[in-house]
Amino acid sequence: MTVPDADALLFDVFGTVVDWRSGVIRDGERLGEEHDLDVDWAAFADAWREAYQPSMDRVRRGEIPWRNLDALHRDSLETLLDRLGVDGLAEDEVDYLTRVWHRLDPWPDAVPGLRRLRTRYLIAPLSNGHVRLLANMAKRAGIPWDLILSAELAGRYKPDEEAYLTAVDLLDLPPERVVMVAAHETDLDAGREAGLRTAYVHRPLEWGPHRADDVDRPDDGEYDVVADDVEDLAGKLGT
Amino acid sequence: MTVPDADALLFDVFGTVVDWRSGVIRDGERLGEEHDLDVDWAAFADAWREAYQPSMDRVRRGEIPWRNLDALHRDSLETLLDRLGVDGLAEDEVDYLTRVWHRLDPWPDAVPGLRRLRTRYLIAPLSNGHVRLLANMAKRAGIPWDLILSAELAGRYKPDEEAYLTAVDLLDLPPERVVMVAAHETDLDAGREAGLRTAYVHRPLEWGPHRADDVDRPDDGEYDVVADDVEDLAGKLGT
Repeated sequence: MTVPDADALLFDVFGTVVDWRSGVIRDGERLGEEHDLDVDWAAFADAWREAYQPSMDRVRRGEIPWRNLDALHRDSLETLLDRLGVDGLAEDEVDYLTRVWHRLDPWPDAVPGLRRLRTRYLIAPLSNGHVRLLANMAKRAGIPWDLILSAELAGRYKPDEEAYLTAVDLLDLPPERVVMVAAHETDLDAGREAGLRTAYVHRPLEWGPHRADDVDRPDDGEYDVVADDVEDLAGKLGT
Repeated sequence: MTVPDADALLFDVFGTVVDWRSGVIRDGERLGEEHDLDVDWAAFADAWREAYQPSMDRVRRGEIPWRNLDALHRDSLETLLDRLGVDGLAEDEVDYLTRVWHRLDPWPDAVPGLRRLRTRYLIAPLSNGHVRLLANMAKRAGIPWDLILSAELAGRYKPDEEAYLTAVDLLDLPPERVVMVAAHETDLDAGREAGLRTAYVHRPLEWGPHRADDVDRPDDGEYDVVADDVEDLAGKLGT
């Protein structure tokens, strides 16, 4: 246990707590069946997700003012549907698909692990997803957050430092008593730079089983904790 | 049912959801017994609470920058202890007493009513208490919020309009789809002014049984809903 005296854990969400890829494929396939669309929904999910970082970069660089993920996802979805030659979807169907990111399911270990961690720590998401998205997701999936934090509260996307520092400020804690938990090293490195402790959670299936070998697991010691999943993290933090 | 198509309910907390007076008396009496203090803890609770609005007014008028309730409560507690001639408390005891506002118990109807309301609406506090205070309170008392909102997120205390509008913005809803719920007409009037729907909850015992008759219950029709308590509100909203 190398996270002495932490009081709160902040979790990255997409990929770390929830399996975005399976959720997008699930809702895409349903829509595809209804409309008899010829779309590879796994490739669709990957392409949509790949548009995610570039869409936030325009906000990060200050080229456009803060826009939440629904707005960014909607733009990139329209581009993607055009590229795939999908038309004939009604406005409300495109809206519904845009918000599939509110309806993602947790990895099987996530909720049981969070329930254990919650007995000792304040637990909250710190996602680039906006507050409403995270609230809808938690309510639908039964994710037992103590409170919902988001990059939206800083008006800055992770890995901008302000996203971490605003969350820490709202927790009313010094950063060293807060642990950033994520499956992505960029997020952890930025959290550490902002003064937080770090816990890596390994998610080799984030981009699908065929890409599991591409996801490197950092060595123990690269972060304060390196865990196989959220249940393993709960054990390593003594809960 | 006069709140058509609302999606979210925002609750005032001190007095509306939790019984601050009994909680302050409880922890005061405990401390008083340990130190053999001759203090009327009911009068103490009332005097501390009476310092609440004036302490926020200095922030509201811009005389001092945003400070959270722990800081304001600490200042007013020290003044009050001085006035009562109480000394000999250790620093950590004064800290602990300052944070009694994190440890208040809900009125008996509050949690059962919120559980019912939560099946249909997003429910959140919108309190002048800060995010951490509200998270600690909810965790200790099992208050089933979907998310925690606070005037702190606007850096402005209720009834300043920004407190309501920031919460509505984070809910990503138009104000008319959000209901402000409170036992205090000032709060409801300001919420209505900001475009929200309103629900009054009657709390005649907020200032103790001897002052129950001083708490006027507004007529039905003065707000979108006028309810006897949170369970009654749940019934009136069809849950």
